[in-house]
Amino acid sequence: MSWSATVLTLYPEMFPGPLGQSLSGKALERGTWSFEARNIRDHGIGVHRAVDDTPAGGGAGMVLRADVLAAAIDAATVSDDERPRLLMSPRGRPLKQADVRALAEGPGAMIVCGRFEGVDERVIEGRGLREVSIGDYILSGGELAAMVLMDACVRLLPGVMGKFESGEDESFEGGLLEYPHYTRPAEWEGRPIPATLGSGHHAKIAAWRRSEAERLTRDRRPDLLGGPDLLTGADLLTGAESKRPGGK
Amino acid sequence: MSWSATVLTLYPEMFPGPLGQSLSGKALERGTWSFEARNIRDHGIGVHRAVDDTPAGGGAGMVLRADVLAAAIDAATVSDDERPRLLMSPRGRPLKQADVRALAEGPGAMIVCGRFEGVDERVIEGRGLREVSIGDYILSGGELAAMVLMDACVRLLPGVMGKFESGEDESFEGGLLEYPHYTRPAEWEGRPIPATLGSGHHAKIAAWRRSEAERLTRDRRPDLLGGPDLLTGADLLTGAESKRPGGK
Repeated sequence: MSWSATVLTLYPEMFPGPLGQSLSGKALERGTWSFEARNIRDHGIGVHRAVDDTPAGGGAGMVLRADVLAAAIDAATVSDDERPRLLMSPRGRPLKQADVRALAEGPGAMIVCGRFEGVDERVIEGRGLREVSIGDYILSGGELAAMVLMDACVRLLPGVMGKFESGEDESFEGGLLEYPHYTRPAEWEGRPIPATLGSGHHAKIAAWRRSEAERLTRDRRPDLLGGPDLLTGADLLTGAESKRPGGK
Repeated sequence: MSWSATVLTLYPEMFPGPLGQSLSGKALERGTWSFEARNIRDHGIGVHRAVDDTPAGGGAGMVLRADVLAAAIDAATVSDDERPRLLMSPRGRPLKQADVRALAEGPGAMIVCGRFEGVDERVIEGRGLREVSIGDYILSGGELAAMVLMDACVRLLPGVMGKFESGEDESFEGGLLEYPHYTRPAEWEGRPIPATLGSGHHAKIAAWRRSEAERLTRDRRPDLLGGPDLLTGADLLTGAESKRPGGK
């Protein structure tokens, strides 16, 4: 069973896009993962295949209908589908590398890409969608966010990265940002490679890298030092259902 | 002068990709922004156009050479180029909507996409690259991250969003996550739209939305409540040069 991603979108022609090339593209060709983009509009209403309507209570933008999106989700769900259902949304809890690892170890994901002002809250509750955010900024839709999520997962699938790219030294894996890298030439525009790295003294090199990683993290991301993550992988996959908004 | 993005990448064929469609694609056709992808390999060394080499001090992966990347940056720099030079990197400071607004109000950006294990630190210093991260996870390269950054900026350019999509109510713009949305039908699978939203009472609706936005933010992102952002737009564009790693 390969890792399987189903994306629900109003722009299926955007996919696989960048994921069809490089590392993830080769893995797709080899069958390490499989991918399907489904058009939400196929479940639209009437001759115009309407998928959205004006927001209840007034305001700007259009809202993706619960009935239309639920029909798209139900049609895309295979028997015994144990894949988490994710909704890419800036309201979601922030994606972390631990979530990516957990997702990559699972069967895959069904990923809903929002557009317009938002998605009717009732389908999020009714179909158990987990809202995931790739960062604190706003995109024109969830498509690029879905690609980011898939790319991050696919590179961790067995056989996708070479053995020399194990990812163990990467940023976040040890709770620190990665240390600085250098390669030939030994001097460039008057800037030498730090002498320690040319010493051949493995323990000193390891200590220098550790110290640099700590310094960078302290300077740039003190938030990564200490304190629990807001979201572990386990939460994203098996956490409690999102709470019902306190309607009335 | 339209907003101008130059991307330096080893995969120019990935671009514009998803950005050639939908909102950003239409804006590209209209000339609201302009875009150029340049291949770093054009500045590679020798008959094989080598761009990378093994890391000084040993270890996994390959490092993008300082001289090669500097040549690519210099060739892509136009006269009086005041665009910030960004390097998409998980080590970067996290992109926030305030940065996106500041970038969208500027002349554009030159965006370097990393690949391999990393980029020689000396070119980051020597060419004043500002490292930007779209989130705390690892991608196979900077290309998708560059697309995310550009999409977020382009949708804010004048005329790209309709007047009913001003973005003022969006997540982060008021420091809160966005309130839940609802649209027709009035009842779906036994779930009604919250009664307040059908009341026609504008003040009550506004109060309900505010209260829901606060509740969601408290539940999901207590980190957004209080405390200064790690990075304002001003820092990203005009902040101090990145510090020299303490070599030796």
